[in-house]
Amino acid sequence: MSRFWSDIVHQLTPYTPGEQPKIDNLVKLNTNENPYGPSPKVIEAIAAANHDGLRKYPDPNAGELKQTIANHFGLSVDSVFVGNSSDEVLAHVFRGLLKQDRPLLFPDITYSFYPVYCALFDIAYQQVALRDDFSLNIDDYSADNGGIIFANPNAPTGIAVPLADIKTLLERHSSSVIVVDEAYVDFGGESAVSLIVDYPNLVVTQTLSKSRGLAGLRVGFALANPELIEGLERIKNSFHPYTLDALALAGAQAAFLDVDYFEQSRQKVIDTRERTTVGLQKLGFTVLPSSANFVFAAHQTSDAGALFMKLRERGIVVRYFDKERLSDFLRISIGTDTEMQQLLSVLADILSEPAQ
Amino acid sequence: MSRFWSDIVHQLTPYTPGEQPKIDNLVKLNTNENPYGPSPKVIEAIAAANHDGLRKYPDPNAGELKQTIANHFGLSVDSVFVGNSSDEVLAHVFRGLLKQDRPLLFPDITYSFYPVYCALFDIAYQQVALRDDFSLNIDDYSADNGGIIFANPNAPTGIAVPLADIKTLLERHSSSVIVVDEAYVDFGGESAVSLIVDYPNLVVTQTLSKSRGLAGLRVGFALANPELIEGLERIKNSFHPYTLDALALAGAQAAFLDVDYFEQSRQKVIDTRERTTVGLQKLGFTVLPSSANFVFAAHQTSDAGALFMKLRERGIVVRYFDKERLSDFLRISIGTDTEMQQLLSVLADILSEPAQ
Repeated sequence: MSRFWSDIVHQLTPYTPGEQPKIDNLVKLNTNENPYGPSPKVIEAIAAANHDGLRKYPDPNAGELKQTIANHFGLSVDSVFVGNSSDEVLAHVFRGLLKQDRPLLFPDITYSFYPVYCALFDIAYQQVALRDDFSLNIDDYSADNGGIIFANPNAPTGIAVPLADIKTLLERHSSSVIVVDEAYVDFGGESAVSLIVDYPNLVVTQTLSKSRGLAGLRVGFALANPELIEGLERIKNSFHPYTLDALALAGAQAAFLDVDYFEQSRQKVIDTRERTTVGLQKLGFTVLPSSANFVFAAHQTSDAGALFMKLRERGIVVRYFDKERLSDFLRISIGTDTEMQQLLSVLADILSEPAQ
Repeated sequence: MSRFWSDIVHQLTPYTPGEQPKIDNLVKLNTNENPYGPSPKVIEAIAAANHDGLRKYPDPNAGELKQTIANHFGLSVDSVFVGNSSDEVLAHVFRGLLKQDRPLLFPDITYSFYPVYCALFDIAYQQVALRDDFSLNIDDYSADNGGIIFANPNAPTGIAVPLADIKTLLERHSSSVIVVDEAYVDFGGESAVSLIVDYPNLVVTQTLSKSRGLAGLRVGFALANPELIEGLERIKNSFHPYTLDALALAGAQAAFLDVDYFEQSRQKVIDTRERTTVGLQKLGFTVLPSSANFVFAAHQTSDAGALFMKLRERGIVVRYFDKERLSDFLRISIGTDTEMQQLLSVLADILSEPAQ
């Protein structure tokens, strides 16, 4: 606490990112990174941009990257907004579109950054409980609202919302902005991008950190009607116009152009997830149906917090949320097949130990 | 305008960055970029970080970079805050430290982003007129205030504030945060960094875009008492925790470690600035005394707007501000000696043309 801080700073409870432990030989399954990394063409594109030209400012409008993303999704270039990670993009969405007189609605269990943005931007919100099976019931979103946001697939559950439900929601709340945070959509969810042309109140956000293996490059984007995108640009250009550095611009563009690598990489993750799910079930875990690059799993008898600690002692880091409704579960990112075999084998060991 | 925007968006007048023209063979003297670019060791460090490891999140705390900067300035690591450009750092400073009940004070002529931040964050401010010679008189900052910010050297004038004046200001306004924006300080200003240990109300911001030739990498930082830095971290971790990508972290660290390159590069710019100033004076320009990597120059008889256009037609882009008190001047970034010779020679041509 400091007498020099603005009032708001005293009230903040900042987001806690997943641990980035500096330990060698760790099996790191805690922050939903992609085990296969970026396309080799991304590395090449960055290498080609890594020269004396770094002395110049990058294109503040990120024109080429936006055009590449627009082409990829079959949208107009003015339907694309890019930022330094989807977290930054979401921050601008909260500030520029979701701060309204009526409260924002989002699930009680979802990306834990949403209430943090609400505190930072002083946005009133109501959390809507997911069903007991952790699925999202659109009929529960009946309250008068100034916006709705949810992650699809949801985090940390991995459960997807059907596209038909999103369409119904957009129609029922046509005067509210509906944001679908699709950080994990490429691992099995149905993207809402196809609805953008018909629904002026829809914003879809995505990231290159997961399915494109580029968490280290910090690139995210939003897709929406140009009118909404213009609102985001106005916020961004009042905050920091040159959001993406020259290397991130080059790498992100290459990531979108290598469609084959993207398709193969995400399919490998999906296949490993399905095998891991079966393996966990055999060990006595209940695994929520995941459309993401992680699974959310609760053991029928063993305490999740204790399992988390025992895995960590054996060099495997997963994520544990000591919160209501979540504390029975472990969130396990999908790594390589080898890593997941190691996880299953260590879990089998731990679970076979006599109870203490 | 859109019914979906938050109220604030309607009220914004975003910052207008200097033009990044996509024309070959242009002499680009409009955005104060460094003609010598980054140290070769920066390029090497980025190349070494450009691999499959980009799949992982970077260190959200930027620990190694902060330690390197702390060592460079002889400060503790908790006196260092880093961000995606000094624009982003300044945004967090405005939001986290300068939003107070009493108004913020800054010069009428200074970095034109300050009033933009004030609009975005709803910060009350008063502009304090510079003297007729564009110097800053600390006695004019007597109004009750919740903070003071100025660029030193100032932009777009290039004029520096003496360190003794900053010290007096810090003492007179000991309950306000004083921010010294030192984007250009390495080209001849006196840095206020040495005052940080004694003045808990001082924040110094700097960038790697100018003296370290890395406008394309987007790295800036703030130095201050740990109490103030903690306030900035709380804002940053409520906005986007992984601010700097893995390549920017690596490149920025290398830039600080190559002190020799830094010293040589900035000295070359200073020498060229002095020669350019003499050349401009010979052509009939009044040149404000610059401690930055640009000069602010008014011709005694020729109209600045017309000169700007004629230079552009001949492939030389400088910056012109069509604003009160500034419209007689051109802001000319310092390029290589060859570029500045070209500028002087083209200006001589233009000025020798018969008046139309």
